[in-house]
Amino acid sequence: MDTRDSFTPTARARLRRLPDRGHYDRESIYAILDAGVVAHVGYVLDGQPYVTPTNYWREGDSLYWHGSSASRMLRALKKGVACCLTVTHLDGLVLARSGFHSSVNYRSVMAFGTARALEDEALKLASLKAFSDRLHPGRWEEFRPATKEEVAATTVLSMEIEEASAKVRSGPPLDDEPDYDLDVWAGVLPVRFAIDPPVADPRLKAGIPPPAYLSRVRIG
Amino acid sequence: MDTRDSFTPTARARLRRLPDRGHYDRESIYAILDAGVVAHVGYVLDGQPYVTPTNYWREGDSLYWHGSSASRMLRALKKGVACCLTVTHLDGLVLARSGFHSSVNYRSVMAFGTARALEDEALKLASLKAFSDRLHPGRWEEFRPATKEEVAATTVLSMEIEEASAKVRSGPPLDDEPDYDLDVWAGVLPVRFAIDPPVADPRLKAGIPPPAYLSRVRIG
Repeated sequence: MDTRDSFTPTARARLRRLPDRGHYDRESIYAILDAGVVAHVGYVLDGQPYVTPTNYWREGDSLYWHGSSASRMLRALKKGVACCLTVTHLDGLVLARSGFHSSVNYRSVMAFGTARALEDEALKLASLKAFSDRLHPGRWEEFRPATKEEVAATTVLSMEIEEASAKVRSGPPLDDEPDYDLDVWAGVLPVRFAIDPPVADPRLKAGIPPPAYLSRVRIG
Repeated sequence: MDTRDSFTPTARARLRRLPDRGHYDRESIYAILDAGVVAHVGYVLDGQPYVTPTNYWREGDSLYWHGSSASRMLRALKKGVACCLTVTHLDGLVLARSGFHSSVNYRSVMAFGTARALEDEALKLASLKAFSDRLHPGRWEEFRPATKEEVAATTVLSMEIEEASAKVRSGPPLDDEPDYDLDVWAGVLPVRFAIDPPVADPRLKAGIPPPAYLSRVRIG
């Protein structure tokens, strides 16, 4: 394993079960992270685990997410505590010939690290622009400039990925050999995110067409 | 608030931010839980938070998930530790006229409790049947019976919901009043799970058509 291109897993990130589903190379991990819009961030407060869904984005080996400076999650995490950020894409329901081998196709990444708040206003703005560009390249330039109050009211967290692992299942069911003779339908029901046509704000000014970047949005 | 129909939130589950987005009634919480297939389960091992994606299902006020008896998550959780199970449905990207008010439409539930392993074989089987029925009513009866070895190799966890909260955002962007005059497109890009036509296993016996229940699958 080339450590320049891979996240070397310790016990925390290494897959115990079905290790052939595991991937630790940056290419696999980046591809899964960059396809998502919602991550689930886990953290501990007074011994209690919390899992909060949040938008996120990636630059290099760092993950970012943001929210109100008043948020419980962000106030807890900006102190620099351990967290786990997980992204999952469901790709299909796998219908095997037995309940035991029934499964799902998916791609997921678990990333471990310590989140820290970006304090510098210019860094915060640059990172928020990166988030906007990831979803809608060109939109940032259409916005009015962010106000100082808006930047102050927004906490941006950055977490350098210390360790990460990807887990992927794809393809048809894998049944016990004798079960292939059963008269049970088997296969995959594919699942994906669909993007429907944009719905204009009821208060949209007349004469503003939907921007071209909307047709290029892909999730999952 | 009628405590028979609602999960009374303590500080753990109560929404701090944007409390008008919060719901604690069983009807809202059940609807979001029952629409999902993948949950993110958070737990703590040696002070480190983990967030593991997993299939899940609900019966009454209990949530269930399962996996290999060798799984790290399941071995940790069956000891009876605090966990947080979160389900999130992404419904749309909300394009406001400023970066600050840009958002997403979503429905999510955070449920708190303590997971325990089902030890009784009949209870395990009944619960696995409920999972199968939730996705594919009628399929369980088509399977060959589960073997004792399969049941033993499967851990089913059950978590009674001690507290839960739902958080929902829907509808168009909410911009600062002066921004409605800007020449920026605003609205919602709707997102949903699409189910594509079933893909038969390459080894499927001839003459077995896709079952009717496949056309009734809904996710999200």
